[in-house]
Amino acid sequence: VATRQSGPTRAGIGQRSETVRRANLSAIVRQLHLRGPLSRSALVAHTGLTRTAIRALISDLVAGGMASEGPAIQLGIPGRPSPIVRPDPTRFVLAVEIAVDSLAVATVGFGGAVFSRVRVERPRAHLSVDETVAELARLARVVLARRPAGEGPIGAGVAVVGVVRRSDGFVSMAPNLGWRDVPLGERLTQALGGRVPIRVANEADLGALAEWRRGAASGVDDLIFLSGEVGVGAGIIVGGRPLTGAAGYGGEVGHVTLDPAGAPCRCGSRGCWETTIGEDALLRLAGRPAGGGTLEIERVLAAADAGEPAAGAALEEVGRWLGSGLAGLVNVFDPSLIVLGGLLGRIHPYAGRIVEEQLDRLALPAPRGLVRIVPAALGTDAPLLGAAELAFEPLLADPAEWLGQREALAAMASA
Amino acid sequence: VATRQSGPTRAGIGQRSETVRRANLSAIVRQLHLRGPLSRSALVAHTGLTRTAIRALISDLVAGGMASEGPAIQLGIPGRPSPIVRPDPTRFVLAVEIAVDSLAVATVGFGGAVFSRVRVERPRAHLSVDETVAELARLARVVLARRPAGEGPIGAGVAVVGVVRRSDGFVSMAPNLGWRDVPLGERLTQALGGRVPIRVANEADLGALAEWRRGAASGVDDLIFLSGEVGVGAGIIVGGRPLTGAAGYGGEVGHVTLDPAGAPCRCGSRGCWETTIGEDALLRLAGRPAGGGTLEIERVLAAADAGEPAAGAALEEVGRWLGSGLAGLVNVFDPSLIVLGGLLGRIHPYAGRIVEEQLDRLALPAPRGLVRIVPAALGTDAPLLGAAELAFEPLLADPAEWLGQREALAAMASA
Repeated sequence: VATRQSGPTRAGIGQRSETVRRANLSAIVRQLHLRGPLSRSALVAHTGLTRTAIRALISDLVAGGMASEGPAIQLGIPGRPSPIVRPDPTRFVLAVEIAVDSLAVATVGFGGAVFSRVRVERPRAHLSVDETVAELARLARVVLARRPAGEGPIGAGVAVVGVVRRSDGFVSMAPNLGWRDVPLGERLTQALGGRVPIRVANEADLGALAEWRRGAASGVDDLIFLSGEVGVGAGIIVGGRPLTGAAGYGGEVGHVTLDPAGAPCRCGSRGCWETTIGEDALLRLAGRPAGGGTLEIERVLAAADAGEPAAGAALEEVGRWLGSGLAGLVNVFDPSLIVLGGLLGRIHPYAGRIVEEQLDRLALPAPRGLVRIVPAALGTDAPLLGAAELAFEPLLADPAEWLGQREALAAMASA
Repeated sequence: VATRQSGPTRAGIGQRSETVRRANLSAIVRQLHLRGPLSRSALVAHTGLTRTAIRALISDLVAGGMASEGPAIQLGIPGRPSPIVRPDPTRFVLAVEIAVDSLAVATVGFGGAVFSRVRVERPRAHLSVDETVAELARLARVVLARRPAGEGPIGAGVAVVGVVRRSDGFVSMAPNLGWRDVPLGERLTQALGGRVPIRVANEADLGALAEWRRGAASGVDDLIFLSGEVGVGAGIIVGGRPLTGAAGYGGEVGHVTLDPAGAPCRCGSRGCWETTIGEDALLRLAGRPAGGGTLEIERVLAAADAGEPAAGAALEEVGRWLGSGLAGLVNVFDPSLIVLGGLLGRIHPYAGRIVEEQLDRLALPAPRGLVRIVPAALGTDAPLLGAAELAFEPLLADPAEWLGQREALAAMASA
């Protein structure tokens, strides 16, 4: 594995002891969030910190209400059992997904448990921004009402099928929703009452985050999550860090030109990858109505199972273009894993062979030899679960801030 | 700017105090290497460390022979002048470049000064691996003989126009050299006497590193350095870190298919970007002999200056394909800067306008609006200077190792 170099800016930052304490607290909190309840010994093993340091940091977390420590579970292992540290489930986030064919909202606790989840299908006749925001606020009230103690979320994460500026959740364009220049972050903040910090990102980026943290790509440092439904986008992890781009617009692989002589695309260009492997491309090739959605796609797959030549040929053709585009991404990124999500995961059993053949033909042998192609493990919920991870990020990155806040709130309450 | 998330593996590593001392030493050494001699005050400003910490770490560096401290230079600023810390120039590296048309070797000191440099042109009739290695060993002896005190280099870095595995410098393929499966790292280690640690990387990756540390992209966190001569490759920096890929094969953008109906490529595929914007494509379009090299390219540019229609049209056509390919990279990476190196930097004044037009037409408006396209600042030496940076990386990453080594050597010598 190559040693990675750091740039001048980043490398110039020295470390002070408070910075180190915060980083170590973050390391522990990430482990608890990712793995759920853990023994002290397991925390020592997973963080590389000393037992003494772990003990002090855990008591900070317990005092700050972010974790509890319970009696050890004796598993028949010799030696003194190690107490179990549990992430406090009253810290939870709201996760939201805006897909082309559905809206979803869930509550997810610190530690990763999904408390409740609703998904409503919606007609392809696009909902306006106003209707979408109102519907999401309604769904949020539904899942929040199911919280036993009635606490509020510490943040909200939103996955949307569009090109998103990360800093403020501004959706520059979402061609498959018919949206352009929508201040989605601002609109949802208002609709949810203005008290919950909201972070918005592209659904493929968040699908990648979820598959990487809790799915098919766990432990992989260089991966591409390719998400396809009506639109096609990628969430890309490079050297263990998500590729966001300068403003968060990165990963729009669906609008790379694959065929200069190809069909017009909703984005205004022509021959984009999306026009060759998106939902409507498959339906058109199979001789079915474009815009038929998931239901019609399932009919194509059933027809292929039944041996209908048109369906089989359509899946082959989509597989051919899928392989062509992936070959380019393999040459550019040298990933060790490609995860196919949404529709593309669904057609993998039918088109996988031809995808591999295209890679053999078109990718450079060295990176091609290293890459595996697999369907997503989390299914269609990957972007929603990624939205929860996005909302948890401020807490995971600097839990010390959150302990302080809690102490300050407690002090105010008792004053 | 988006907050970047960390993955489970990386985030799980806690920090101990010796780790922190080493990281801080590295921060200081990087600043000295990047900026040359610096006052203690400047080091405080650039690293964020306390004055006390800086003083202790500098005395470690001075004791280890890696820096010297001299009297302050009074620049008319009020207050007590701050002593100047100078990187020790007896720590130096050997930088090597294997291009299609030339070989180059240089010695570069800690602090960035280039001591001496030789470049020899070579005929397009490819040199074999044996001849290349022998010639490089000869050139290395020439530049090393010019060292006044006769010390040896602390490492060597090699830039090569090929697909390289970073871990051992194995060149999987270099179509434009006619090489395949060459253990270049091993061969050069033998040829240079076996004592110097050698690191090999792709020339575009190293050009990017040099332009990023010391050229047109200084301070930019998301950039693409596109290098074109006979072949085309990219060095890509994502979120402040070089994209290497899982095995170091990343950045091979020259072999992304741009036109499925295009010309055959040396890599075995068809319609690769390289076949539309490489040196031979420009010469062919201008009606001149392919394989004519840099000299013939300069003739095309002179003809364009003189108003010859065929030359102007050829440059426009290359610009069109350059813009098409860049549009895809802009959609995928959302970079803030694209640096054009080699031939592509040379043709930028002629083809820049049409490149921008293609981006307007083919890239998504949001990332397109953020990106600037500029020619390289370091000219054709960028990969050679990047090779020096690669060789310095172990010293910059963990200078403590190098202090220890020196002390151990001194102890052995006095025993």
